[in-house]
Formats: sequence, C-alpha cells, structure tokens
Amino acid sequence: MSSLFLRTLRDDPADAEVPSHKLLVRAGYVRRAAPGVYSWLPLGLRVLRAVENVVREEMNRIGAQEILLPALLPRDPYETTGRWTEYGDALFRLRDRKGVDMLLGPTHEELFAGLVKSEYSSYKDLPVILYQVQTKYRDEERPRAGILRGREFVMKDSYSFDLSDDGLKEAYSKHREAYQRIFERLAVKYVIVAATSGAMGGSASEEFLAEAEVGEDTYVRCLESGYAANVEAVITTAPDPIPLDGLPEAVVHDTENTPTIDSLVEWANGALDREVTAADTLKNIMVKVRLPGGDWELLGVGVPGDREVDFKRLEASLEPAEVELLEDADFAAHSFLAKGYIGPKALLDNGIRFLVDPRVVSGTAWITGADEHGKHYVDLVADRDFVPDGTIEAAEVRDGDPSPDGQGPLVSAKGIEIGHIFQLGRKYTDAFEVDVLGESGKPVRLTQGSYGIGVSRLVAVLAEQWHDDKGLRWPREVSPFGVHLVIANKDEAAVAGAGQLAEDLDAAGIEVLLDDRKASPGVKFKDAELLGVPTVVVVGRGFADGTIEIRDRFTGEATAVPVDAAVEAVTAAVRG
Amino acid sequence: MSSLFLRTLRDDPADAEVPSHKLLVRAGYVRRAAPGVYSWLPLGLRVLRAVENVVREEMNRIGAQEILLPALLPRDPYETTGRWTEYGDALFRLRDRKGVDMLLGPTHEELFAGLVKSEYSSYKDLPVILYQVQTKYRDEERPRAGILRGREFVMKDSYSFDLSDDGLKEAYSKHREAYQRIFERLAVKYVIVAATSGAMGGSASEEFLAEAEVGEDTYVRCLESGYAANVEAVITTAPDPIPLDGLPEAVVHDTENTPTIDSLVEWANGALDREVTAADTLKNIMVKVRLPGGDWELLGVGVPGDREVDFKRLEASLEPAEVELLEDADFAAHSFLAKGYIGPKALLDNGIRFLVDPRVVSGTAWITGADEHGKHYVDLVADRDFVPDGTIEAAEVRDGDPSPDGQGPLVSAKGIEIGHIFQLGRKYTDAFEVDVLGESGKPVRLTQGSYGIGVSRLVAVLAEQWHDDKGLRWPREVSPFGVHLVIANKDEAAVAGAGQLAEDLDAAGIEVLLDDRKASPGVKFKDAELLGVPTVVVVGRGFADGTIEIRDRFTGEATAVPVDAAVEAVTAAVRG
Repeated sequence: MSSLFLRTLRDDPADAEVPSHKLLVRAGYVRRAAPGVYSWLPLGLRVLRAVENVVREEMNRIGAQEILLPALLPRDPYETTGRWTEYGDALFRLRDRKGVDMLLGPTHEELFAGLVKSEYSSYKDLPVILYQVQTKYRDEERPRAGILRGREFVMKDSYSFDLSDDGLKEAYSKHREAYQRIFERLAVKYVIVAATSGAMGGSASEEFLAEAEVGEDTYVRCLESGYAANVEAVITTAPDPIPLDGLPEAVVHDTENTPTIDSLVEWANGALDREVTAADTLKNIMVKVRLPGGDWELLGVGVPGDREVDFKRLEASLEPAEVELLEDADFAAHSFLAKGYIGPKALLDNGIRFLVDPRVVSGTAWITGADEHGKHYVDLVADRDFVPDGTIEAAEVRDGDPSPDGQGPLVSAKGIEIGHIFQLGRKYTDAFEVDVLGESGKPVRLTQGSYGIGVSRLVAVLAEQWHDDKGLRWPREVSPFGVHLVIANKDEAAVAGAGQLAEDLDAAGIEVLLDDRKASPGVKFKDAELLGVPTVVVVGRGFADGTIEIRDRFTGEATAVPVDAAVEAVTAAVRG
Repeated sequence: MSSLFLRTLRDDPADAEVPSHKLLVRAGYVRRAAPGVYSWLPLGLRVLRAVENVVREEMNRIGAQEILLPALLPRDPYETTGRWTEYGDALFRLRDRKGVDMLLGPTHEELFAGLVKSEYSSYKDLPVILYQVQTKYRDEERPRAGILRGREFVMKDSYSFDLSDDGLKEAYSKHREAYQRIFERLAVKYVIVAATSGAMGGSASEEFLAEAEVGEDTYVRCLESGYAANVEAVITTAPDPIPLDGLPEAVVHDTENTPTIDSLVEWANGALDREVTAADTLKNIMVKVRLPGGDWELLGVGVPGDREVDFKRLEASLEPAEVELLEDADFAAHSFLAKGYIGPKALLDNGIRFLVDPRVVSGTAWITGADEHGKHYVDLVADRDFVPDGTIEAAEVRDGDPSPDGQGPLVSAKGIEIGHIFQLGRKYTDAFEVDVLGESGKPVRLTQGSYGIGVSRLVAVLAEQWHDDKGLRWPREVSPFGVHLVIANKDEAAVAGAGQLAEDLDAAGIEVLLDDRKASPGVKFKDAELLGVPTVVVVGRGFADGTIEIRDRFTGEATAVPVDAAVEAVTAAVRG
C-alpha cells in the first residue's frame, strides 16, 4: 500500500447520493472523468475484472463463444432496423472526417445478426451463442449514482441464433441458468421478474433485478404465488364485462369548477343520489406519440380517476415510440380539447386514438368529461356511449392490487436491473434476412435471442448490497485481494514477520494487500474497513507473544492465531 | 471446430492489400465492420488476449499499476493543452445530448496528468508508473491494411511521473527494457530507432519498429556504428561554413524556360563555364503552416536541388502545426511569388519565413530563382546575399548519406511502429500544474514519461512477419491454441483415439483445437496451415499401426510418434 496508486478520502464526494457511489469514490476504486463517465483505479479494476471472469466462465460453460465487436459503428445497420432514430437522444452519434454518420454502440443486435448472416450458410452451423464483454455507450439523460448508471459502461451481451423456436427457448433457458449461477457466485441478492422487451422488440423476456432501495426499477411480487414482474410488465386484471341492457342513460351535468378528480368527486357526492369515489370517474390524459416519420400523433389515455398514469408504464406500452405530454400550444391547436373536461366522445369524434385502462370493460359506467368547460357526463357507458380504440397498460400498479395469476395481492419493491434476457424472435433476422439453407434444402430464417449483464454496474450493486456503515465489504469471488494484511506493530521482528507471512500467503496462491505504510494502526484499520477485503490479517501487539489476528470483515469477528499456524489458518479463512 | 464460430475463405478479400490483412480475414480471425474498424472473431480474440497478457506481465514486472480510463472524454483537458485543435481531423469529436463537446481518446497524457494531480500530493507518493490496456480512436485519413492501421484499436499506454529528470530517465529505461522483453517474448523482429516526439511534445524519444516491407515508417541505419533512426528524426550532417571573402559576385541571368531543376541544370551547363549538377541549385518550396489561432502563415523551404522535400520529415519538423502545399489562390494572392523562379530574396524582402536545409551553410553559393519569370541568380551566397531564418530537416534522406555520428553510410528500410517511448518532461504537468510537496517543503513540478504499445497492431505485425505462402504461423506465446489436432481418419477407433488424446492434452494444460468436422483430410490440412497453430497433430492412417503424426508449422517437419507416447511427445513439442 505504500506504493499502491490509492488515496482514500475522508469525506463523501459532493455529487454522490447513493452509498455505493460514495464508498467506491472514498475507497479510491473509481474516479469521475465526466458526467456518467468513470476511471477505474487499481482496486476498482481488480473487482471489475473479477466480475468479468465469473461472467466469462459461466458463459463458456453453456458453450457460448467470445468475440469482440467494435464500439464505433456504422449507421447503416441501425438505420435498417429504425433504431438510429428510435434511440433518440440516448444514442451518441458522430461524424467521421469524411462526414460519414457513425454511432457508439448501445447494444449490438444488428451487428451480430449481420455477422452470423455473413459467416454462416447452413443449418449444420446452428445453433450458436456468441458473446462479448465490451464497453458500451448510452447518453443517459440523468447519469446518476456513479457507475450504477453511467454513459460509458461495460456489458456482457450475448446473442443466440437458432433454426427453430424450440431452439431459441433452449438457448434462453441456458442463459437463464447461467445468469443464476453468475449472480449466485457473485453473491448478488436478486429476483427474476417478467419484463417488457423495450426497444429490443420481440416477445418473452425476463429481468434480473438486484434488490436495492436506490433502484430505479419497481417490481411487484405476489407472495402467495411467487409471481414477479417489473411494474412495467404487469398485466392488469380486468373485471368481467357488464351486460348493456338496462343501464341508466348518460346525462350531461353542469359541474362548474370541477377540473380535478377531487373536485368532481365532491360535486358528485353532493349532486347525485349515491356514494361516488374517484374510482367511479374516468380521467382522460392527453399525450403525443412520435410516429416513425417524425410527426407527432395525439393519443388519449383513459384511466379510473383513483389511479395516476405511470409514465414509465405508458412509455413501455408504446415503445419504441417517444411519448410526451401535451404543451399549451397543442391544446390551443385543438379547440375540441376542453382542458379539465376532456371526455371520450370529443376524442373519438375527432379521430383521436383513445386507449383505456383494462378495467374500463364493456358496460362500465363512468363520470367523465363532456368536452365543454364546466360539464361532465354521468353514466357514460363503455361500448354503448363510446367505443375505445383498445386498452393500454398505463395506470399505476399499487400494493394490494390483485396478482395477474389471481393468487393474492401484489407488493412492490425497488431493484436495479443487472440482467435481461429476451427471446427476440425474428425481428432482426427479418430486417437483415438472416437465412441459412435448411435440412430440407429450403432457406430457414433464424430466430435470435439477446441477453445482457451489466458488468460494471454489478460492481456498484455489490457495493450497494454488502456495504456497512464502516465501508465496503466484498463477496469473496470479486474481492480485489484475498487478504488485507495490516502491519500494526513497528517492531522490526513484527515487520519482518508480516513480510514473511505475505510471501508465504502469496506462495500459497493468495493475493495479499500489504499495508506497509508509515501510518498509525488506527488509520490502517479504518482504511481496511473502508476498502472491504473480506479477510483482514493484523500483525500487531500480539506478535511478540507469537500470535496474529484474523478479522472477518463481514461478521466483525477477530480470532487470534499462533504465528506458526498463520498461513494455514488464513488460507482456511480465505478458501473456507 | 465443428461448432467453432469460424468460416475460412478461399479468396482474398477485395479490399486487402497486405498479406497479414488477407490472411487474418481468410483465416476468420477478424472481420471488417466499417473502414478501419474491425470485429475480433474467436481465434483473433485469443491472439489479441495473448498479446495483452504478455504486455501486462512485463508491465507489472517493472512495478507499473494497471488502471482503466474512459474512451469517451471531456474536451476541457485537451483544450488546456491545445490538442483539441492540434489533432485536426484525426480526432473523433462528438456532442452529447446537452451539446457538450466530447472526444474519443486518441491517447491519454492529459487525463493521467490530471489524475495524478488529484490523487497525489507528497513527494513520498512518487515515483509512479500507471498503465492501461484500452481501446483508442483515431480518425485516420487512410485507414489501411486491416488492423495494422485501424480507427479503433487497442493500445497499452503508460505514463510515468517522477520528481526529477533522473527519475524520468530511470522510468524510461525500465520501459525500454520491458518493451525489449515484450517484443522478444512475442517473437517480433524489431529495431529501436531514434524518433521525433511528434504531437506529444517533449524531448528524448525512441520508436520500436517491426521490420516489414509493408511498413509506413522508413528508418535508416548505419551498419558500422549501429546508429538507427526513424527517417523523420535523422539529423543532417552539415558541411563546414566557407569564408565569404573572395567569393564571386551574384549575377542575374536570363534563363527562359527553366522552371524545373533539370531544365535549369541543362541551361547552366550550356551557359556557364563550369560543370553544374542539381546539387549546385537551391530549390525553394512554398508551404503554409497553420498558426495556433487558426490562420495560415507562408513558409519557404530551401533545399539543394538534387533532393526532394520529404513531406513527412517536413511535417515532423513543424509538428504539431498542420502543413499544406500552396494552392493557386495562394500564389495569386502573393504576386512576388514567381512560380518556378522563386528565390530567397523576394521571400525575405516580403517578410516570409525562409528556412533552409542544414547543407545550406554560410558561404555556399547557389544557382537559384531571381523572383522574376525566366530569371535565375548564379552564385547567390548564403549569409552574404541572403540570410535564412534558420534551418529545417525537410530534405529526403538517401541511402548512402553519411550517418550523423560520422561512422559511415546510412541504409534505409521500412518498418511498422509497434512501440514508442517518450521523455515528455513537463509539457503536460506544466499545463495542469501537477505539483507535489517536495522533501524540502516546497512544491515540486513532476516530470512525465509517456509510453505506448500498439497491442492490436501487433497481431497484424506477427501475421505479417511470420506467415508463409500457405497461411499464418503464430509464435508460441500468442498462438490461439497450443495444438491443432486433425482427425484425418474416419475409423471409429481413430476418432475415439483422437478424442482421448484431446482430453489428455487438455488435462496436461494444453489447449486443443480439435478438427472434428466431416471434411476431407485435404480440406482439414489446408485449414490447419491457414490458421497457423504452430503444432499440428494428425490422427490419420497411421493410427491403425499405432502412430500419430506431429507436424511443425514453421519447419514443415513431420514426425511419427507411437500413440502411447503421444501426450508426452506433443507436450514436449509445445513446451519446446
């Protein structure tokens, strides 16, 4: 440590909010080079490489083959699939000296599909799983939390290519198992949840979420059934439809000053002869959606008034299209939009697409806007008075909502996405016409899977999950060193003994971080706690009496061990 | 090989000119993704990683510490040192979603200096050597030769920081030795030559050039003395000055139709009473040089008429400034420039900077332009009739020129730059004020070294130096596999025996590439030669008689070995 390129900091960095970020900077593992862009210092790089190695070993175990594609990519393939524009501002675009458009790869579905097309031509070559551990780029709007959400980051991405859907399912399930092994070896606490496929396209997909309060993903679980899903992927349980016969007429009421749900419910409970809650009202939210050509299309979204629209769920339902709320100018341009009193009828009459929450089933009667300032409908009945263009998962999911599998209530928690597995299907192989000659002599279109692990993010996740108030604590597989050996005794014999012990441990194949600095034992102990190597060995006062101490960074337990038995005992502690 | 992601090609790729490029593509090691941007397929990645590992081991051996900086960098530090503009079009620049200027790092002097400044504050922390193995970006004007000169490539760059010039010299010499060990282990044929420091700034610098006919660098050597230098760094031996007394007067002659040196010499031999050669004429070349502010300044360069101006030498002398030849518009804008008849006098009279070849010493008399169409001076004497602003190394170096050390003639050859070591000095530490508290209590400005190895380029260099007409041949340290085991016998027993041998070799720690494809022995042998694993083992016809064959890819020798002794014999062949 006297020559290690390391400076530990006493104070939290000013821009850090989450514990992992604070500690990784304070312990000298990473340094910020630009917003969302980090340098890896010696200890951090060791942890990163250890994570990479676990990932590689388990990928190789399922027969995946490692290759390495460039990060600097041509525009063409991304133009073919539409992602050059779909990615919006999240894509780093640049021009080379000849003015040719290029990009920094955010993910490589296109390139892998193209590569397999150019290399393989026969069914005999399939199936194949290819992967890379590579630096990726996404221009996040709000890079945050250090390496937890960076703009330059390391990912393992793999892609499977198969002749049939069954083959794809097998590749998917191999990945699922490999990911479980990886996260178990890394000692990540995680859940597997159903997911939407986002900008990837394709069908079946699951996310691996690390449990963490600071997570940006919300997932829900049903404790009875084990159902788990990212909140974006939750399918709302729709009630049974109601026969239309005999339902009351829809009537327009004067409802001056009721532009909010609260004020409308208050009016209804005074004016109507029944008890009304927010759940009886239909709230119609206006957004605009970007069409492939670049124009914006208006969209109305109707949800029960007791629920907010969850913008992330709304976006997930409409992906890859961009979505924005209306601006004043949009309202001004469409005079039939009576702000605060918008109802289904004006939207549908004016050809605006109108999607509703799945709870708005046929025969449900709603208090909702009458498209005129100060007026609402009462008992506007779905499928009788208005026929929506379809349903959309946009309303918030709440604790206590029924699980989609009907097994009980949902509870929610926060998580960090560390892995994502997709059965893409033929979206990309269609785009690039990736065919091989089938056994029958006819061309077969391949089916593709896409699988990612956030390698650099995992370093932050492990810091987040395992740290305590004293500092970092690394699970054995990723610890930057096997042992942190502290010389806490200035006597020549003790210093020499510590040096000998370090050599012996090294010979036994254990990497030793030797604190040989001229600092007080107190400073050294504090740094050892901050750095987080799981086994700390102290050559201290006891050395004169023939003992050293082994401290467990996780349990805090300290054990005195005779110097003679030190190598054996430390090896046992490390290998244990 | 039946499942390896590999397709060998019979034909050379259309865009490939040099052997290494052709073979690396044909053998399925790399694939082009964009001009100068390549993907590494399984075999190529194995070679790349092997090179990286040798580099890492030898860097660690000199106490260098590995870290990893981002490739996506902020503009600011490069603005501070002026390299944001100096790099010209070679720098990949981009803007993020907020419009902030960023770049893809071509080299990291700035960032490392800044990092050491922010982490270190005391002389006790020094010296330190930091390195990274990292993907770098340069927008080459003419990316060529596959991975030999790519726009995205892998480099090992390291930086030393020292308190004193002696410390820097020691770090430099450690690197020099480490590089020698690296290139020896990799079996690269190379020379060390004196170099200019280019856009890096700083003083002492040497290049490691791989010997290769396809190289873009020209170096010269003096076989007597061992002197070697990149042609850009050759210092011209100047003759002794000549006393001015008694030299003939300068006279203007009518020399109609003599705009070229040849026509001028022909005229002179007819018109003057002596024998004249091109070496008696002074050729004045006009260029323009970009000033830091962005404006262009005219510059006249005078060289003996028997030598061309070597534009690379000229550029190296003027670096980091950009240099261009004059366009017609430039001539038009300066009417005193009489094209074909330009002489020193008009340049100097009009305040144009005029630099001459070191051979143009005081008292030399020249036939040169008189700044008027169809007129030349004869006997225009340096330092009497014109006083140049200085000298410049711009004239070509030729085989047979005297070595700068006076030991004999120079001979030239072509090479590929694989390493470069610089004593930068304080150029960057001055720019960022990188000081630490010295032992005396006063701040000490650190001195920096910068050292690079072209890691991905080395893969191409090795292919270039070691291939033969049948394919690649990998030096042992970087071979993608230890053994290429060909099953050239369809008998069940032979196939099983080959499988067993592969397992036994694997158990002995030798990585085996097993050709288990359903292809003819001829196809398999051809592929084995193309792929270039140095030891090929054949389980063929002889298996029935209890023998296998070990082939040496370098010598072509084949040795029959009893099956019982196969593991031992192959291990011996591989471990050499």
